[in-house]
Amino acid sequence: MNVQAPFFQTGATVAYGGPESRSPLSFRWYDKDRIVRGKRMEDHLRFAVCYWHSLCWPGGDPFGGETFLRPWQHGDDAMAMARAKADVAFELFRLLDVPFFTFHDVDAAPEGATLKESVANLNAIADLFEQKMASAKVRLLWGTANLFSHRRYMAGAATNPDPDVFTYAAGQVRAALEVTHRLGGQNYVLWGGREGYETLLNTDMKRELDQLGRFVSLVVEHKHKIGFKGPLLIEPKPKEPTKHQYDFDVATCYGFLRRYDLLDDVKLNIEQNHAILAGHSFQHEIMLAQALGVFGSLDINRGDDLLGWDTDQFAMNVPELVLAFHEILKGGGFTTGGLNFDAKIRRQSIDPDDLLHAHVGSMDACARALIAADEMLEAGALTAPLAQRYAGWDGEEGRAILAGRRSLAALADRAVEGGLDPQPRSGRQEYLESVVNRYV
Amino acid sequence: MNVQAPFFQTGATVAYGGPESRSPLSFRWYDKDRIVRGKRMEDHLRFAVCYWHSLCWPGGDPFGGETFLRPWQHGDDAMAMARAKADVAFELFRLLDVPFFTFHDVDAAPEGATLKESVANLNAIADLFEQKMASAKVRLLWGTANLFSHRRYMAGAATNPDPDVFTYAAGQVRAALEVTHRLGGQNYVLWGGREGYETLLNTDMKRELDQLGRFVSLVVEHKHKIGFKGPLLIEPKPKEPTKHQYDFDVATCYGFLRRYDLLDDVKLNIEQNHAILAGHSFQHEIMLAQALGVFGSLDINRGDDLLGWDTDQFAMNVPELVLAFHEILKGGGFTTGGLNFDAKIRRQSIDPDDLLHAHVGSMDACARALIAADEMLEAGALTAPLAQRYAGWDGEEGRAILAGRRSLAALADRAVEGGLDPQPRSGRQEYLESVVNRYV
Amino acid sequence: MNVQAPFFQTGATVAYGGPESRSPLSFRWYDKDRIVRGKRMEDHLRFAVCYWHSLCWPGGDPFGGETFLRPWQHGDDAMAMARAKADVAFELFRLLDVPFFTFHDVDAAPEGATLKESVANLNAIADLFEQKMASAKVRLLWGTANLFSHRRYMAGAATNPDPDVFTYAAGQVRAALEVTHRLGGQNYVLWGGREGYETLLNTDMKRELDQLGRFVSLVVEHKHKIGFKGPLLIEPKPKEPTKHQYDFDVATCYGFLRRYDLLDDVKLNIEQNHAILAGHSFQHEIMLAQALGVFGSLDINRGDDLLGWDTDQFAMNVPELVLAFHEILKGGGFTTGGLNFDAKIRRQSIDPDDLLHAHVGSMDACARALIAADEMLEAGALTAPLAQRYAGWDGEEGRAILAGRRSLAALADRAVEGGLDPQPRSGRQEYLESVVNRYV
Amino acid sequence: MNVQAPFFQTGATVAYGGPESRSPLSFRWYDKDRIVRGKRMEDHLRFAVCYWHSLCWPGGDPFGGETFLRPWQHGDDAMAMARAKADVAFELFRLLDVPFFTFHDVDAAPEGATLKESVANLNAIADLFEQKMASAKVRLLWGTANLFSHRRYMAGAATNPDPDVFTYAAGQVRAALEVTHRLGGQNYVLWGGREGYETLLNTDMKRELDQLGRFVSLVVEHKHKIGFKGPLLIEPKPKEPTKHQYDFDVATCYGFLRRYDLLDDVKLNIEQNHAILAGHSFQHEIMLAQALGVFGSLDINRGDDLLGWDTDQFAMNVPELVLAFHEILKGGGFTTGGLNFDAKIRRQSIDPDDLLHAHVGSMDACARALIAADEMLEAGALTAPLAQRYAGWDGEEGRAILAGRRSLAALADRAVEGGLDPQPRSGRQEYLESVVNRYV
Repeated sequence: MNVQAPFFQTGATVAYGGPESRSPLSFRWYDKDRIVRGKRMEDHLRFAVCYWHSLCWPGGDPFGGETFLRPWQHGDDAMAMARAKADVAFELFRLLDVPFFTFHDVDAAPEGATLKESVANLNAIADLFEQKMASAKVRLLWGTANLFSHRRYMAGAATNPDPDVFTYAAGQVRAALEVTHRLGGQNYVLWGGREGYETLLNTDMKRELDQLGRFVSLVVEHKHKIGFKGPLLIEPKPKEPTKHQYDFDVATCYGFLRRYDLLDDVKLNIEQNHAILAGHSFQHEIMLAQALGVFGSLDINRGDDLLGWDTDQFAMNVPELVLAFHEILKGGGFTTGGLNFDAKIRRQSIDPDDLLHAHVGSMDACARALIAADEMLEAGALTAPLAQRYAGWDGEEGRAILAGRRSLAALADRAVEGGLDPQPRSGRQEYLESVVNRYV
Repeated sequence: MNVQAPFFQTGATVAYGGPESRSPLSFRWYDKDRIVRGKRMEDHLRFAVCYWHSLCWPGGDPFGGETFLRPWQHGDDAMAMARAKADVAFELFRLLDVPFFTFHDVDAAPEGATLKESVANLNAIADLFEQKMASAKVRLLWGTANLFSHRRYMAGAATNPDPDVFTYAAGQVRAALEVTHRLGGQNYVLWGGREGYETLLNTDMKRELDQLGRFVSLVVEHKHKIGFKGPLLIEPKPKEPTKHQYDFDVATCYGFLRRYDLLDDVKLNIEQNHAILAGHSFQHEIMLAQALGVFGSLDINRGDDLLGWDTDQFAMNVPELVLAFHEILKGGGFTTGGLNFDAKIRRQSIDPDDLLHAHVGSMDACARALIAADEMLEAGALTAPLAQRYAGWDGEEGRAILAGRRSLAALADRAVEGGLDPQPRSGRQEYLESVVNRYV
Repeated sequence: MNVQAPFFQTGATVAYGGPESRSPLSFRWYDKDRIVRGKRMEDHLRFAVCYWHSLCWPGGDPFGGETFLRPWQHGDDAMAMARAKADVAFELFRLLDVPFFTFHDVDAAPEGATLKESVANLNAIADLFEQKMASAKVRLLWGTANLFSHRRYMAGAATNPDPDVFTYAAGQVRAALEVTHRLGGQNYVLWGGREGYETLLNTDMKRELDQLGRFVSLVVEHKHKIGFKGPLLIEPKPKEPTKHQYDFDVATCYGFLRRYDLLDDVKLNIEQNHAILAGHSFQHEIMLAQALGVFGSLDINRGDDLLGWDTDQFAMNVPELVLAFHEILKGGGFTTGGLNFDAKIRRQSIDPDDLLHAHVGSMDACARALIAADEMLEAGALTAPLAQRYAGWDGEEGRAILAGRRSLAALADRAVEGGLDPQPRSGRQEYLESVVNRYV
Repeated sequence: MNVQAPFFQTGATVAYGGPESRSPLSFRWYDKDRIVRGKRMEDHLRFAVCYWHSLCWPGGDPFGGETFLRPWQHGDDAMAMARAKADVAFELFRLLDVPFFTFHDVDAAPEGATLKESVANLNAIADLFEQKMASAKVRLLWGTANLFSHRRYMAGAATNPDPDVFTYAAGQVRAALEVTHRLGGQNYVLWGGREGYETLLNTDMKRELDQLGRFVSLVVEHKHKIGFKGPLLIEPKPKEPTKHQYDFDVATCYGFLRRYDLLDDVKLNIEQNHAILAGHSFQHEIMLAQALGVFGSLDINRGDDLLGWDTDQFAMNVPELVLAFHEILKGGGFTTGGLNFDAKIRRQSIDPDDLLHAHVGSMDACARALIAADEMLEAGALTAPLAQRYAGWDGEEGRAILAGRRSLAALADRAVEGGLDPQPRSGRQEYLESVVNRYV
């Protein structure tokens, strides 16, 4: 291992330079102290850098190996490498001036020969994180445990046909949850990467759903026991690595949480790329989660609409982000959640500074979108026509129907005998699309 | 209108001819009285011909008009045309010897100038149906109302921004439900063809979900009021005609039914083509519906895996049907449900007999699949390996975990302190696929 | 028929109002006389209104009927209706101040009882168009014949298994081509809407490709014979209405044109929605067509990335349009081609002015994109890094390789014996994405 | 490294046991000496085991690591591991009794510190292969070079922006081609795994296509120079690992081969999973390749229709295979090509015998399909209706049109003046689907 210090060419924290700034490593829109709807921009966006993509992923894909050759990933002493990685990580957090980070247990600390050793490694790195966080701005948005990479989890963790694997997973999660608690994490995430199936020929879906319900319930109980105040977050994803994942999308997760009576303690961590893999827009998933009361946090990234796998690209698509932020702001913004960069630079982006360009570009795109969304809300650009469109339901008859004060027969009588002949009104889609374009 | 009698070239009811039969209008596998798992094949499969595709669709698509030129669709007297259509319909039912049919209100009877007139038309045709059914074998699997074709429903029926449209829909549904009841229908279907949105820019999803919940609740109340014993069925479909439909898939519908407390009265009508549009296999949707206790009935058809719209082809794909029937039989088969041919002949299949070939071919494919599924179940081809795979969860510790008698901490202690190191076991997918091939 | 004059609420031509304009019926970016790269914006963009979507489509979809209720589509006298439609069409062209329009034969004039009558109808309406064009600004970008809507074409026109259908199509195309020529059309389009197949079970692809090659060759010969100077344009589309269309995408069309030796006379008319249905970005198809020398014209619209059919929405997506225009400008812009609005307002957009809002919004989005693309080219934002990236191929060895002056053995020797060990360089994708965001 | 001998539990070559055989490791349909259309079944199917999936892939995916723990992949002496792998490989070939195998350079022999060392390693393993082949039945279907896994190829090999990478690739290909020649390989494959792009922002498509054309031309020249008689095969794939691959599908490859004048020496290696990723059926790609004269060989596998990436599953889908073999037989069968199992067992299939079950099951499915396809051809089940459908084109007028003896004007005159009114005939799709079901 030869970790040259410094890893990045620049040592200067990226700063706001204004819209006309020509420096690629300055923000044009992200002005952290700018007040939007009564809150600092930084407190709205709550950016988090993720450990796995930015510090751990070597640049491989199913058809090729490592491209990045990160110095901290080549060596014999796993714990020394983990410490070197932490140094670079905190340098990255500082350069980007982000308020949060996130990690899986195995991102931070190497797995040991036994689970006991793995837990010890994790706690040792957590000590290091605590030290570093004492003098850094960065806080922990959430922690999580990786229950999908090791071969023991190849057929799932909680949904594994072997209860011993469930038990092993419990061991990992307790440790990760407690470390998250110790580090002041604001949420705890459970991503069911392999909680699904490869083929129905060998799968008992009913059993597996019950196992998953039980597992999440156990974590909820433990969270209360140790006094962890943040919500648990499950993360909708339809497929990949498995053919089908039980946490398919927001609607599916909602049904699951209701079925196992988990709505009080568990919210959702929604990702753009997962949304489109499930056939939904990002805006759809956010709006639905708010409607169902399960909106928690976001993995901010972008998928390629023409590819069928999780590309996890950095979000640069301002018009789409505007609509996402419009919903978020309309719903009151984040509480414990934030914007976690579950995004990876392309495997050809092999220069250290590519990591900076990617984060800076995406933070700026988000900031640009936040400003536009705020302006749209202020002007009632979409909200005013919306209220007008549904005005009938706020009238007396509309409210009576929704309140259950009309029977089917009563309504039918009014329609049939009353000669009702409602006329459609324009949906004005193109007009509204033009309106949005005015703000982007 | 010039309805030549007879419409079909043959007047002979299609009969079982055995696997070696060379006649294209005989069944090779569908032997209605053959006993499978203690029940007649006809009572297992419960085939229904649908009115809309087979009697009403003129062969048009978004880029071209009518191709079929059905005689009963060209004329000035709408009610006379409807009666002529009914004649051909019952002839078709007789030729195919099917036990059931299904229809929308507007398939059977023309819309009038007012809703009152439409209801009167429907009741007049229902009288005709009653007469015909008195001397025919065919019964009504389910009825339904078309709440999506008329321009008044362009922005939804129950989810329309205008409560008057909701009310109008109530008028149609009451009539259709009561006619279904009168004709002895075994279920009543609510397909939310436009209960969704075209753009989120003009959509309040929370309001619309609440409207939809209210509407279905009203129908449930009315069903009890009039003594209709069959279940209501909602039908998952992810999109088309709308960009997004609220009844996206089985999991989504389950969450909806739970949210609005409708699980006791409403089940699902699952369709293969809708399943794949949602990113699921047919087998998945059936297995999940059974796991969640919402399995009701099937729209049997087939989509094209390479096309992104609802092609509604006749199901001819035996290997896939085998897996579907394996789940159905494993779950005990249909109660009030059946196999409704929500399938349309291609628009180039313009000969009257193409209607017969399509139904006969698909009935045979289903029968072939039923037999194979039964053989697989008898042999435990898939069920035995499945039981073995999950055996651990039937052991003492597995049951204790699922019953809530283990805390996360207790499990974690066992994993960490006990040095647990569970070893993965082969999922044997290729072996199981080969096994299935032995039965097809 | 009751065509109230005027159809649109406004009688004023839409004008440029500047970026801060608040009027929804003014252009904020489209300033037709603004000079971009030495040419008026109007001469760059060459907008055309299409007859079929904007004047003929009644708002139906596969699950519902007419929503628009256009007055000129309800009546008994087909030719009178066609004339009324032309009045509204030319009013629309005037209001939008577009330089071009486009039409199919059957959009403009009704089909007669015989082909002879159809041709006569077309010529009569062409007379009317000539009159109107004499005093209007609008010119004809291209004409075409509809060879896909009538049931005679259900199995294709040129690729029909019946040579009489091929012959009938020849009759239609001759008339449409000659009318296009008479009206000064700058191109002639052949869209093979049903030149493909529904099932391979009844298809001889080799025969059909040869038939199609022959048909296009015949049109080429006739074009020369009558002195029509513009190119023929074929239009890539992968599917819909057919399961597979022979003009799948740009690459497929190129191979077809080469196979039948048509490259000199035929270019491509590329559409965004068709591109994404084929799995390509719009930018990809444009760049590829330019690389292969077959770039002709564009159908400007937008598909929904999450839907699998041709939604033909108005293009409002500025960031994507910027990349398209960047390629177009880089390649020198249009010659005979232009931007044809092959886009339809949503079926819920039932107000006459929705037609205006849609066109104005999309024209503005294109103008905004043109300006940004021009700025990017001026700054070399993408072109400078590109040149640098491939600089090696402009060196001596690179040129020698491409010129065929190096054998495989010679290169291999240099690699093996020379100990060649080329090092990868960053692809800088995220940086470039950020750069593009600066211009949008 | 601890390669226990034997790796597989069985030492007995898998034999034909007949349709009723209950042994999972016997063939029910694959009877290698059975004569079908005058040729032994083995000579029809020409099965090849591939080295990479079956011997080299460790079971990893983008979300998890190795699951298989093959003994020959854990050790320090790379060449010793390669030899141990070869032992298991030839044992697998013997057990399956396959006539062919295939490999990439890096599958067989480890990369060295320099290209020179890599080439030496390859030649040493080729020596070992020669020895083993002397006493084995197995022959080499084709060899190839891996130009996509190493980071030097991250931006392509022939299409790399750096000509030195092109040159390095030339070094690898010369060695692999010469080894293939030495071992009696019947074809040589060039798969352009990274010959495409990740983003158009940094891509000059025209340059890259020219580079690729040059590269293939160089290999053609070298093939002739060394006297290699077999064809080169390029392999259509639309995407993955890259966003877009230049060898998108059969039609695209055809256009490429024509553009660079390579049709005489290069054919296509078509894969089912690649076909569906491009939006085509396997049958389509085969039929098209035959129509265009570029049919070469097949990678036999199966993708998951609901997943957007290359799952490379073993082909078990008999009905689809029947249609593929129907085309292959109709076209005269393979010449130098064959059926290469470019298929990998699922990562949960961790038992050694899973490798056997997968191959045996798929070989049997292919054999079953070959028999059915032959029966269909013998009966003219599809070919007779096909000939009838296009009979008009074999008539005098049809032939005159195709031969260029009719002008557009002449045809148009006949249509217009002759009052032509061709009537459509049924496409009979459902009938034909039923017919196919009789043979499966």
